[in-house]
Order: sequence, then C-alpha cells, then structure tokens
Amino acid sequence: MKARLLTLILSSTSLLVSAQAWAQRNEPVQVIPPVQVDNPAMVELGKKLFFEPRLSRSGFISCNSCHNLSMGGTDNIKTSIGDRWQEGPINSPTVLNSSLNVAQFWDGRAADLREQAGGPIANPKEMAFTHELALEFLSSVPEYKAEFKQVFGTPSIGIDQVTEAIAAFEETLVTPDARFDLWLKGDDKAITDQELAGYQLFKTSGCVACHNGPNLGGSSFQKMGLIEPYVTDNPAEGRVAVTGKDADRFNFKVPTLRNVELTYPYFHDGAVDTLGEAVDIMGRLQLGKKFSAEENAQIVAFLKTLTGKQPEIVLPILPASRDDTPRPVPFGS
Amino acid sequence: MKARLLTLILSSTSLLVSAQAWAQRNEPVQVIPPVQVDNPAMVELGKKLFFEPRLSRSGFISCNSCHNLSMGGTDNIKTSIGDRWQEGPINSPTVLNSSLNVAQFWDGRAADLREQAGGPIANPKEMAFTHELALEFLSSVPEYKAEFKQVFGTPSIGIDQVTEAIAAFEETLVTPDARFDLWLKGDDKAITDQELAGYQLFKTSGCVACHNGPNLGGSSFQKMGLIEPYVTDNPAEGRVAVTGKDADRFNFKVPTLRNVELTYPYFHDGAVDTLGEAVDIMGRLQLGKKFSAEENAQIVAFLKTLTGKQPEIVLPILPASRDDTPRPVPFGS
Repeated sequence: MKARLLTLILSSTSLLVSAQAWAQRNEPVQVIPPVQVDNPAMVELGKKLFFEPRLSRSGFISCNSCHNLSMGGTDNIKTSIGDRWQEGPINSPTVLNSSLNVAQFWDGRAADLREQAGGPIANPKEMAFTHELALEFLSSVPEYKAEFKQVFGTPSIGIDQVTEAIAAFEETLVTPDARFDLWLKGDDKAITDQELAGYQLFKTSGCVACHNGPNLGGSSFQKMGLIEPYVTDNPAEGRVAVTGKDADRFNFKVPTLRNVELTYPYFHDGAVDTLGEAVDIMGRLQLGKKFSAEENAQIVAFLKTLTGKQPEIVLPILPASRDDTPRPVPFGS
Repeated sequence: MKARLLTLILSSTSLLVSAQAWAQRNEPVQVIPPVQVDNPAMVELGKKLFFEPRLSRSGFISCNSCHNLSMGGTDNIKTSIGDRWQEGPINSPTVLNSSLNVAQFWDGRAADLREQAGGPIANPKEMAFTHELALEFLSSVPEYKAEFKQVFGTPSIGIDQVTEAIAAFEETLVTPDARFDLWLKGDDKAITDQELAGYQLFKTSGCVACHNGPNLGGSSFQKMGLIEPYVTDNPAEGRVAVTGKDADRFNFKVPTLRNVELTYPYFHDGAVDTLGEAVDIMGRLQLGKKFSAEENAQIVAFLKTLTGKQPEIVLPILPASRDDTPRPVPFGS
C-alpha cells in the first residue's frame, strides 16, 4: 500500500520536487526526526522541574546546572560540580538529542530518560537530595500539586511522575536543521568542499562504524582505547559496572557527535578541550590511524556542520515556596 | 504649555476615559514605569553576559546563579553560594526592578547597576574571577568580539562595556501590572477588601515611611533595629562600611517589597523564611508595634498583591569557546 502511494507521488512531477526536498541521501547518518509533542502540559511541567534547584539539597543545583541549555546541554567543564562543590566522577553528557540514545549515562545504566532523571536528584555527589524530600517539597507547593494533578490526574505526586515529566521535556530537546542535515536532505550547497571531504574521511576511516545513525553515536557501547590503550586518571570503568562482564571493561556508550562543537571538553573524563585533539586521539586509539593536519582539519570542519538549531527555551517562572515548604540546606552537613 | 494641553485633554469627554485609565491614585506608592529599550542589541548582549558562567573562575557561576530569573531574581537561600561553595556574607537582593534603587548592594556601595555588575565577577567569594581574565575570555570568542563591536563600535572589549551591557539588560527586568498597580491605576476590583485593609495598615502603621515610591523601598538607608535591636550572627554592619560614619552602623538600604512573595528569605541576613514573621519583626523592631494575627494577615495579603508580571526571558545561546579560549578552573586552588 505504501509502495503504491510512493509510486503515485513519484509519478507526479509537481510533487516530485517536494518529495525530493524531504528525501534523504542514502548515508549511514540520518537527519534528526522532528519532535512530536503529544502532551504540551507535561512538557511544560517537565521544563519547570528541569530548572528547579529545590530538587537539590542545597536549593542551588538543577538539571540545567550541568546540562545547561545555553551551552549545548552541557556544563563545558571536565567533570561536573556537585553538592558542596564535590568533583563529579565523569563528564556530563549533553541532554540535547539524548532521547535518540539507546540508553542513558556513559555506562548505559539507565534504560531511558525517565530512569536517568531520578539519578542525579538522589546522587549524594550531585544534587544530594532524596526522592522522598523532592516529593515533600513539590507537594508543599499548591501550583505544583495542581499542575501534577492536571497532567497525571492523581492527587498525589510520585517520583515516577516527576521523572516522566522531566523526560517528556528532554525529549523535546532536539536540534534539527544542522547544515549537515540540509545536505543529507539534498542541498549540495549546505556544506563546503572541505566539510564534505571531512565527511568522506569520516566514513572511509571507520569513524562512522560507531558514530552513525541520526545521533552519530549513542547507539552502541564501544571500548575506549581499542587499538592503543586510553590513559586517564579517571577511575570509571564503563559498561562493566552494569553487566559485571570483564569484556565490558572500558566500554562506554559512544557519545553523540551532534553539536559536538558546543559540548567540549571531550571523552568520558573530559580530558580533551579541542576537537582537533579529540579527532587525533580517536584516530590513533580507535582506528590505528594518524590523520594528517589537513585530514584532521577536514574532519573537524565536518563535525562543525553538525551544530543544529538549539531549542528555544522560555525560562520557566517557578512557583514560590510556601510557609510550610521545607527549606534547602545549602551549608552545613 | 503642558497645563494648557492637560486642560484640553480633560475637556474632551472621550479622552477623559483614557486619561482616567492611566491616572494614578494619589498614594505614596506608585506604579512601575514602563521600560523603554533604547538599544536592543546592547540588552541582548547583556542578557548573554548575565547568563555567562565563563565570567567566573569555575565556569559554573553566572549572575543568574544568585539572581535567578526563574525565582524572583534571587536564589531563595539565606546567603549565596560562591566559588568553591563559599558561604556568601549577605542575602542576595533581587535583580528585579533594581534599576529603581537609589544605589546597589545592601550598603549602597555601588552607585548604579553598572558599578554593581563588576563586583561579583571579581569578588573572591562569589565568581572569583578578575576583570582581566573575563576580558581575555570574551576577547577569545569571535561572536562576542563581533557583538561588542556592533554595540560599542570599538575593536577591543573593556570592563566598562561589559558592565554597561549587563546593566542595560538588568534595566529591562521590571515587573509591571501587579494587582496592586492595577488598583493604583483605578481598578477597585483588582485587590480584595483584606488586601486593601492591609495596605491601609501598611500606611497608617508607618511601614510606608521607608517602603514607598514605585519600588516600595530602595530609596533610602535605614537602621535595622530602630526601636529594638536586631539580633543576628551576620557580621555585616551596613552603610558604615561605605561612609565610615558611626551613625551609619546597621543602616541598610531599604529593600524593595515588589515581588516580595518570591524573594524569601528576608532581611540582609536572610534569617526569616516567611512574610508573616518578617512583618511581625519589622513591626516590633522598626515601629514598636505588635500587629495582631488579623493585622499581620492583612499586611501579608497586601504584600502578595505586589507580585508583578515576571520578565519573559528566552534563554540565550552562548557562543562556544574556541581552541585558544582559556579554560575555567572548577577545581583545585
């Protein structure tokens, strides 16, 4: 039935043009699918929660602190700053396009964004709160109670609803219309010859074996240091922490390359500041290949075509605490 | 000439209606004047800088960290969290309507918002940066260089331009159309009888002696603990730090009551969480008056009519650091 419809469309010259405009080149990288917002009220609630520092013990740290939507959905520092300025164990991955990942966290320990969202709230090195205290706070604010009731239809607020709303907001954080996507859709002039050469190298050198699909990554776990070992002070061991299998040691989720120009520093330990250095290390350690300066510049130029349209976020106005709302504990133990 | 024009307007019945809609009751509190944006490009640049954590040593703290525009322009904690989680010396006052204040900071040590804006960047307990390093960072980012050049017409970026742009943005952060403003403009139904009774008490009890004008405060320095001393652990001594005069000891800038429902906790030491307690303490210490529970509730009800329309802020997208941009120092000394 679909095939017949396609034939009908293709047989019409006037429609052919519009079909071509949306067709994608046959490449191992695909354009980002457009977001469909089924439940705008839930997304709006999730946005408030994403910017809500009262979900942390200190009242100071929100999801946006480390996944800053002004800065490519990251904090642009090596490893994040948590409660009482604790040094985080790993680089904060971007929240942008994260719904396209096969799993969440570098070791994939959360199956999806809902499961991920509860983690940092209760992590003593991050927001250092508990789910119980988070719910106690939310339930003390009438506007939140009303909004949860409107969205979920129940009188009490549960942590599953909190994480579902945050995930619903995060699912809207996609970055379409990167120049590379325009090229994928058929616009030859969307990228330069140097950028195209970089993409060809990216394919022929083997980068695309892991960095593929609409998110150029996020779809598999791979060993960091495949050909040569990766030397780092960071104690994270990756996927083995989840599976317990020795073979998964130093296997990390392949990070997305979408907006990679904005998501420095790079790698799970945030050790590398520049794209040029990251490309060089990846080439040597993962592919056994030393890119020339020209090749490196071509690949970097290609990677910069992956910066998409950033989500336009109107800052939410958070409802005020009430007299009986528990207060944050910013200092002291 | 103006008088004649007014006579002409008032003599026209059809125009009289519209004149009435904008007339204000003759009260010691006035509506917030509307903002006029003369230089939108400067405001837009100032907004970026206001949200720019790379103006701090750690790359983590921006103006918005402590003057959070999701939370009444404050951080809603007693005293702020600074670089390396240092405990701030004093409660962060709201940035909302701050252009209406006679001076900036609790002790008025900055004459205006421009002078204020440079303070936290270089304060070792706050953003812990230096003006030199801030300029070095900004100058390393081509988009910032181009934007400063467009706004200020000069090829190099100076700290005066940084603070001027931040101040220009902050001047737009006014909150018009509070219910009390609608009442001031003549809408009798904009506030309830209880709220009106609270305002009458606010006037007859003497609160309005200090909390007057469009910002209900911000126009003078007054002694904290006029009738009875104010007991606090906070070492701040107020205006004396600026003037050196003993008479100014414990004189603080009278805080605005605009949006006071959102700007808890209260007083320069942030010691008080609720409006009811703040009104009680102010009555006893400043006016020698013990409000009854009913009176207290009336004044609190009035204060909640001062919550205005919060600025609608589209989160800025900050330009990426370049290879040669100096990196933040989030950890270590």
